[in-house]
Amino acid sequence: MKKKIVVQKYGGSSVANPERIKAVAERITSYKNKDTDVAVVVSAMADTTDDLEALAFQISKNPADREMDLLLSTGEQISCALLAMAVRELGFDSVALTGYQVGVRTDSTHGKARVEQIDDKRIKKAFKSGKIVIMAGYQGVTADNEITTLGRGGSDLSAVALAKAIKADVCEIYTDVTGIYTTDPRMVPEARKLNEITFDEMLEMASLGAQVMQARSIEVAKRFNIPLHVRSSYSKEEGTMIVKSVKNIETIAVTGVTSNKNEAKITICAVPDQPGISATIFNAIAQAGVNVDVIVQNVSHTKKTDISFTVPKSDITKALSAAEGVARKINAGEVIHSKDIARVSIVGSGMRSHQGIAATMFQALATAKVNIDMIATSEISISCIIALDKVDNAVKALHKAFGLDKK
Amino acid sequence: MKKKIVVQKYGGSSVANPERIKAVAERITSYKNKDTDVAVVVSAMADTTDDLEALAFQISKNPADREMDLLLSTGEQISCALLAMAVRELGFDSVALTGYQVGVRTDSTHGKARVEQIDDKRIKKAFKSGKIVIMAGYQGVTADNEITTLGRGGSDLSAVALAKAIKADVCEIYTDVTGIYTTDPRMVPEARKLNEITFDEMLEMASLGAQVMQARSIEVAKRFNIPLHVRSSYSKEEGTMIVKSVKNIETIAVTGVTSNKNEAKITICAVPDQPGISATIFNAIAQAGVNVDVIVQNVSHTKKTDISFTVPKSDITKALSAAEGVARKINAGEVIHSKDIARVSIVGSGMRSHQGIAATMFQALATAKVNIDMIATSEISISCIIALDKVDNAVKALHKAFGLDKK
Repeated sequence: MKKKIVVQKYGGSSVANPERIKAVAERITSYKNKDTDVAVVVSAMADTTDDLEALAFQISKNPADREMDLLLSTGEQISCALLAMAVRELGFDSVALTGYQVGVRTDSTHGKARVEQIDDKRIKKAFKSGKIVIMAGYQGVTADNEITTLGRGGSDLSAVALAKAIKADVCEIYTDVTGIYTTDPRMVPEARKLNEITFDEMLEMASLGAQVMQARSIEVAKRFNIPLHVRSSYSKEEGTMIVKSVKNIETIAVTGVTSNKNEAKITICAVPDQPGISATIFNAIAQAGVNVDVIVQNVSHTKKTDISFTVPKSDITKALSAAEGVARKINAGEVIHSKDIARVSIVGSGMRSHQGIAATMFQALATAKVNIDMIATSEISISCIIALDKVDNAVKALHKAFGLDKK
Repeated sequence: MKKKIVVQKYGGSSVANPERIKAVAERITSYKNKDTDVAVVVSAMADTTDDLEALAFQISKNPADREMDLLLSTGEQISCALLAMAVRELGFDSVALTGYQVGVRTDSTHGKARVEQIDDKRIKKAFKSGKIVIMAGYQGVTADNEITTLGRGGSDLSAVALAKAIKADVCEIYTDVTGIYTTDPRMVPEARKLNEITFDEMLEMASLGAQVMQARSIEVAKRFNIPLHVRSSYSKEEGTMIVKSVKNIETIAVTGVTSNKNEAKITICAVPDQPGISATIFNAIAQAGVNVDVIVQNVSHTKKTDISFTVPKSDITKALSAAEGVARKINAGEVIHSKDIARVSIVGSGMRSHQGIAATMFQALATAKVNIDMIATSEISISCIIALDKVDNAVKALHKAFGLDKK
């Protein structure tokens, strides 16, 4: 019989101190038996990465990416060594491996390297001799033996890529929340934990502000169809399965409500309606190093149109200066902006087959006296830009309107 | 013209914090010019190694050596990355390399691995492109890609082995003292810094308690005749050169006086005087895992003799139990011991060619009313075991008797 293979990923708060590391070791060993092999990916202990980064910035305002990776990768090397010790202490054979020891091959983009391939040889060999593998997350190695890191949240990616490489049956993502919720429970006490969610929904949720998992790692899991199980390292409770398609016969139209208060809005008025004008504008914004989120351009009846878009609040100065520059160049009108906005979104794969979702959303916002400023839609989400001080009311109203508070 | 190559090793206190790291970077870059290449070996920042060790012992009383090496080697990885950043900040190109990136090949004795070979390719390549190399000390890698450490003080060994591999002209050992002294300046204010000392003398000094450099690294430097320069990272003052033979025409008989208060004495009385009996005794002690230091056995006239030896105070219980066991087995008499002893030693290559050194030593101790309990000699040292409470007086008397307080 083929043995079951489980990949588990533990985040920094799950291994914050020796006591937590021991607790995690207990959980890991409870999975290992003669029919199941376990490979664990671990993040750096709690604030280690931030502390190392702070140390570097005391020495240089602009440290070289290569040395930064060499520095930061020690955090996971420490936690994986300690976790392997804790597992062994419970009587289970164990081996801690750095990214380069496993053979997590990446490109050479230091600080946000892309995983090209993970060698399964060393891990399969460890499995054969009955060992539990503890791999340092977030790090890899280039063909030239340079240590790289995968960017913030990179341990999620390590886990998913590992699960793919060793053909794991499931990839469990342990965190400090018990799963994915219909909305932020701190905002709406009635928020419910979801048993299942699709990769696509999770991607929308992640990019729309639910900070449970790194978006890139969800994309990879989706591409290779690796089931993810997001759950808490503090309890035995089942979390949320992230899968290709949910099993419910009656699909629910809306799975979750998210919000984002960290955006600002810029409008370029009276833009001449010519082919290629949008490209000119957003090239200018991109060259300023600003990621644009929602873009709204209305149909024009007057040879002039207004183009609005949102950017991260922290980039508003850069974005405004770029927008004003390009506005002059293309003979557009005034550039106006507002920081007092927020976005609320509803997400759900079921939208594809349900009618009237948008109407329900707008009605719910109207009833809650929330004015809609901009609207943007994707295949499985609808986002509205509204006033910042209305966001809590809006989320509550939408959560209720789509019946997310009911089982 | 062949370029000059300088290897510099900085200990943990020299890189204790960002300010010290910047100061070290200043010093490093002051050496680099178009005619000189610089490779630096760096220890972990101050207490990092102890802190990591403490973390491990919170998790396991007996952590696996392999994982311990993975853990501890991060200390030097951190300091070498930070030091490379600091060097670059001063406008010099620089590359930080771990032991495995350089190719510091060791055997697989985790925790005290022996260096087998250091690859010079990567470093020569860095030199060619004008880079200052910062290498993580204390660590290496086995043929199987396992990370090893070289034991306490191992960064000294890394530096000496590196100096050998890249054919350095000098290996500078930076520490928090300004050099090697005729004796401990805390004990004898008149102690003088030595300009030169031979490898052999330094080896005797190191093993006799002067804790400036690791003995193994001095042995390696001696074997390959690599001149060492022990000096302070806090001042520009010249330190002490450790060389094959000193240049003075008139060799000085005694170079230094050392003492060691961490020994205890065991005597096995009335040992039958048979061939092989000493081997039986010291095999038993060795099997108990105790290193014996001074051994004294007098000529026997009575078919019975007393054998005395010293061991580290911390091992006295183990050593006593082994001694009592073997004493019964060989039909010896009583086993007695004392912790209230210390050793004073005089060291000097010149002893070989000077007469009357021992007599001067014993006379000086007699004048200072210090009773001699045991005597042991090597080619370039004489050690006396005396009462613990006499050690300060003894060191002062010997320092004066051999004129070490005079230029």
